[in-house]
Amino acid sequence: MEQNACCSRREHDLQRRVRAFAEERDWGQFHTPKNLAMALAGEVGELIAEFQWLTPEQSAEVMSDPEAGGRVRAEIGDVMIYLTRLADVLGIDLADAALSKLENSALRYPTDQVRGSAAKR
Amino acid sequence: MEQNACCSRREHDLQRRVRAFAEERDWGQFHTPKNLAMALAGEVGELIAEFQWLTPEQSAEVMSDPEAGGRVRAEIGDVMIYLTRLADVLGIDLADAALSKLENSALRYPTDQVRGSAAKR
Amino acid sequence: MEQNACCSRREHDLQRRVRAFAEERDWGQFHTPKNLAMALAGEVGELIAEFQWLTPEQSAEVMSDPEAGGRVRAEIGDVMIYLTRLADVLGIDLADAALSKLENSALRYPTDQVRGSAAKR
Amino acid sequence: MEQNACCSRREHDLQRRVRAFAEERDWGQFHTPKNLAMALAGEVGELIAEFQWLTPEQSAEVMSDPEAGGRVRAEIGDVMIYLTRLADVLGIDLADAALSKLENSALRYPTDQVRGSAAKR
Repeated sequence: MEQNACCSRREHDLQRRVRAFAEERDWGQFHTPKNLAMALAGEVGELIAEFQWLTPEQSAEVMSDPEAGGRVRAEIGDVMIYLTRLADVLGIDLADAALSKLENSALRYPTDQVRGSAAKR
Repeated sequence: MEQNACCSRREHDLQRRVRAFAEERDWGQFHTPKNLAMALAGEVGELIAEFQWLTPEQSAEVMSDPEAGGRVRAEIGDVMIYLTRLADVLGIDLADAALSKLENSALRYPTDQVRGSAAKR
Repeated sequence: MEQNACCSRREHDLQRRVRAFAEERDWGQFHTPKNLAMALAGEVGELIAEFQWLTPEQSAEVMSDPEAGGRVRAEIGDVMIYLTRLADVLGIDLADAALSKLENSALRYPTDQVRGSAAKR
Repeated sequence: MEQNACCSRREHDLQRRVRAFAEERDWGQFHTPKNLAMALAGEVGELIAEFQWLTPEQSAEVMSDPEAGGRVRAEIGDVMIYLTRLADVLGIDLADAALSKLENSALRYPTDQVRGSAAKR
């Protein structure tokens, strides 16, 4: 009933914990949207480096290797942390923004016209 | 009680919808982790471009400009879509991965040692 | 004889022209290293988007498609422009920095130990 | 006189050395344009991480700090290495591609219309 309108409890919990993590360290001063977008890009760079020399087929099996799989999970965690923090400081609800964009993309890419094709529109 | 162990309903809903979006278009064939990591990097590139010429102060006000704010929200939506899809094909729970990493970072950056400093460890 | 010590004429010419392009538009105020690193990342995002849905084999043939090949060449041009500008404002010689790093990598990756393996060190 | 038509000696030398570095390690098999674009994005991610928590003013002074400045120079070297290698496997001349794009941008951004403004076109 008191549930924040914007988020499920689990999402709200992640957002709240990331915010607390930053505030406890007095890092709010560094967390402008500009800086957080850079930090997000840096983490995505580390994630992409995990896949750069793998064939597409090897990339599909990456989680079965405990070491590489653990690194991939950690990098995805880092990306999600900065994305959550960036959305928080901008006042954007992540899942809402994703669902809006998905509806928009559904109109641009009608299933009967794009099936099996990766061409951009 | 019946709640999916891994996700809140809202998170599960986003994951399910992104998956359906891809399957309806027969795009599963393109959605290897390698390709999705690239798509994620491409979307983060578009997001960072929104902030590149802004001062940190201007970036903090970006949502008050309806046009720029709308573009930022759309780009964040795109990033979240690809991150959700990548985590889905890898079998990774996004919030879990973020929370694990946050705990790990809490150990590496003790509050009493790093307060107010952005130095990397 | 008058040749700038740091650069061949052609490299110097590119650097000089990129600088003039920025100065004629009074864009020096935006061209801090921080902003230029972001612009570089944005352009690399556009470049990577050209390859994201291609198989490795298709990516090797991309220049034989005039349309996709033209886009790739233009994106590589954009990346080189911002890299040149970033190096210029930092006072770094691009080719020197690359050659130093290559020598360093030669020590970390001895040919007899890494042949045919993509493992990181 | 025998000079390669496409490049100055110094540029040709860098391209040749990067190619030799890869061939001596039998890494040509990994160096598809797709993979090299990913490696380039990974290196740009490391470069951007050097600037993420700096103010624009601090970023302009980064080379006066020997440690941070050394890291920035090394990351720029890495970016240039992968950009050179990517251009080489695609048969693209880096400086030519940059100059073509610069001419194109000069038409899109006439000096008398864009002076002092960072708005995108």
